[in-house]
Amino acid sequence: MALMTPKTPPGVMELLPRQQVAFQTILDTIRRGYERFGFVPVETPVFENVDVLLTKSGGETEKQVYFVQSTGALQQNRKPELALRFDLTVPLARYVAEHERDLAFPFRRYQMQRVYRGERAQKGRFREFYQCDIDVIGKDSLPLYYDAEMPAVIAHVFNELKVGTFTINLNNRKLLLGLLTVAGVDGPDRQAAALRELDKLDKVGREAVITSLCQGESQLDQSQAEHLLDRLGQEAGTDTVLARLRTLADSQPELQAGVTELETVVRGMRALGVPDERFRLNLTIARGLDYYTGTVYETFLDACPGLGSVCSGGRYDNLASHYTKSRLPGVGISIGATRLFAQLLDAGLIDAAGAGISQVLVTQMDPALMEDYFHMATTLRAAGLNTEVQLEASKIGRQLKYADRASIPLVVLMGGEEQARGAVTLKHLASGTQREVARAELVTTARELLGLQPQNVR
Amino acid sequence: MALMTPKTPPGVMELLPRQQVAFQTILDTIRRGYERFGFVPVETPVFENVDVLLTKSGGETEKQVYFVQSTGALQQNRKPELALRFDLTVPLARYVAEHERDLAFPFRRYQMQRVYRGERAQKGRFREFYQCDIDVIGKDSLPLYYDAEMPAVIAHVFNELKVGTFTINLNNRKLLLGLLTVAGVDGPDRQAAALRELDKLDKVGREAVITSLCQGESQLDQSQAEHLLDRLGQEAGTDTVLARLRTLADSQPELQAGVTELETVVRGMRALGVPDERFRLNLTIARGLDYYTGTVYETFLDACPGLGSVCSGGRYDNLASHYTKSRLPGVGISIGATRLFAQLLDAGLIDAAGAGISQVLVTQMDPALMEDYFHMATTLRAAGLNTEVQLEASKIGRQLKYADRASIPLVVLMGGEEQARGAVTLKHLASGTQREVARAELVTTARELLGLQPQNVR
Repeated sequence: MALMTPKTPPGVMELLPRQQVAFQTILDTIRRGYERFGFVPVETPVFENVDVLLTKSGGETEKQVYFVQSTGALQQNRKPELALRFDLTVPLARYVAEHERDLAFPFRRYQMQRVYRGERAQKGRFREFYQCDIDVIGKDSLPLYYDAEMPAVIAHVFNELKVGTFTINLNNRKLLLGLLTVAGVDGPDRQAAALRELDKLDKVGREAVITSLCQGESQLDQSQAEHLLDRLGQEAGTDTVLARLRTLADSQPELQAGVTELETVVRGMRALGVPDERFRLNLTIARGLDYYTGTVYETFLDACPGLGSVCSGGRYDNLASHYTKSRLPGVGISIGATRLFAQLLDAGLIDAAGAGISQVLVTQMDPALMEDYFHMATTLRAAGLNTEVQLEASKIGRQLKYADRASIPLVVLMGGEEQARGAVTLKHLASGTQREVARAELVTTARELLGLQPQNVR
Repeated sequence: MALMTPKTPPGVMELLPRQQVAFQTILDTIRRGYERFGFVPVETPVFENVDVLLTKSGGETEKQVYFVQSTGALQQNRKPELALRFDLTVPLARYVAEHERDLAFPFRRYQMQRVYRGERAQKGRFREFYQCDIDVIGKDSLPLYYDAEMPAVIAHVFNELKVGTFTINLNNRKLLLGLLTVAGVDGPDRQAAALRELDKLDKVGREAVITSLCQGESQLDQSQAEHLLDRLGQEAGTDTVLARLRTLADSQPELQAGVTELETVVRGMRALGVPDERFRLNLTIARGLDYYTGTVYETFLDACPGLGSVCSGGRYDNLASHYTKSRLPGVGISIGATRLFAQLLDAGLIDAAGAGISQVLVTQMDPALMEDYFHMATTLRAAGLNTEVQLEASKIGRQLKYADRASIPLVVLMGGEEQARGAVTLKHLASGTQREVARAELVTTARELLGLQPQNVR
């Protein structure tokens, strides 16, 4: 029989076990952080009905969708009825609309699942990747306090991820549109064009943006454009910027609304313990054109600004207008965990080499003592320690090498002579500490060598 | 704009938040159990290349596959290159073959992901469902001890799931084939036919199986068939059955091998702490025709035998013969978590009503004190408690009702008068216990009322 080449499809991230452990730790940390703030889990099917998924007026997104067909449908050449989700927002909208009567609002949910996009395969672009989202959905209205809670969640999660310091960039779409109006860019089309240009600021630089603001649809003159960028790019402290904006705000109602919202959000964030060095106002961020309507967030790792935003989101007016007449305003953020993990690995900010699952390896010094090894492993597991038994006979040196490679910190050694004396030896591989104790002391000693607290009595 | 009906595709299990919490608890328990035995996580992409996925000579499986196509491929009417995985075994085989040089053998992995089958939609059949698998893959050989470890994992996990008592049914394919040979059923075709009939024993009963053994391809006569079923159906203790089989075994080498294997597995299980009342030999289970070659397992909940096996698996000779020339014997088990959860809900064995995420709700008695509420929530979160703040102004009675509905056990209450005195009230909803304490005592009192141990100093 001819062999098939075993190969993953292009554009997916498949990890070796040790990397998977490190990635799993990141997902667990994110999830624990979301739960710490009282978000409840939701999972949706990987596919949705095509008509549900593609209600939005497609464009780029529709070109990237993966359609799903059963064998039967394919043979009959029918049009596909299912497609893989390309984000978690459309499924959330469908979920909330479908289960509206069964949910309590404001509805706080987290969802951590993979999404699918038929991207052109290239480095850093994935066709399958995890999104880790939280959203709060209100019915008819949703207090601004929720906008203040999002950065508190971001700060909590990224602190726990231990990937260095980070800065949450804050802006407000009303404020930004107000500033455009004040700068002389009015009307939705000109404003949309200006936002598109501003979005490129990080990539193309100030001069290029000024040029395109003047030559493009926004129709600014050189001094207007420069003035606008000066105002957006101001690098003062949060309170100074807010005070300056406040003095401008009287001139324009949208600007006024935006400043008031931003002030409330900043006050709330501070009360929620987000220190000033972890956030800044960044009036240049726009985040897409139509979706967000108020507060917007982007988050950058201070050591690697080049990674781009690692956690973004914002406030929107109405989640599910395609599926329900109810008005469902919301605010949310998303972490693209697959891309984040790949970038952190590349940047050396996480080290998968030390990641393991087992805490103890019970070695096999004498195959005749296997039942003793089983007993000891069972005792260790009952005490909450992840424990492997060496089940394959091999030289003890190889067994120790395996423990080392698998990042198992502690090994248990017992030969016939020790067994006869009721003794057992424990060795902590990293420190080299080795101790012979009575078998009754196995658990206590293991926990001590692993640096764990004495076990609590249940 | 016309509204789309928000609807999940048929055949999927989508849960409300509270059910999702209960389901997540089950997945976490399974995962923790797998890790307790030192299994490391693996995740594979939801789709595989079609030629990789469908190497097996299809039949039923191939008819149930979901094919995946990007928009571009669909428009060009190309043949699909991708398909959704229908189990975790084929992806494991591909994974091990693809990464063979980077893995340490025996390779112990767990994988808990959803799989897809284009089943006819009907109750209890899902088109998308979780499988939670563990497998150990050896290179060239794999000691029998691994077969003994599987039931120990099953026993550990189902103990932790707390869904009542259960019985692990054990058999061995070599032993079964040996018994068939002794009974006069020889040759692969007749044996395969007999196994197919025996597999139906639970459903159709003894008499129907005897009839079909006599009339079908197995070509037994009535007394041979009765004798075979008597032997397979014996209801004695494990050691008695093993002893009886041992006396038969000399007559047939395959039977002898099977008995020896089963004896070793039983001895190992006992050493690993699986009590005799949690397992039994069941010589009638066959589990498919070609795949398994030695030990096989099925697990039944004692209170609901009608659910069928909730955790099955066995030993196989060669995992990845389609992808590599290496011989990779393995042993594994699988829990179909989606079906299990649906069944447990139906049977009343789990109650999702009490499942929640938040431990504390900081109520909003006075909107002017919001920053104080934020401070308290931040303190509680820093102490490891999942905490929500009531961000929407509403009557306090409604807030308490929300806490109750969301299964939040503890609420924090503070009005202006208490705030002025530096005091705060905590109320445990289930017990009705209410206590006013100084704000500095917030965390200690909260943990006490929640029945948690005093917080350890980090």
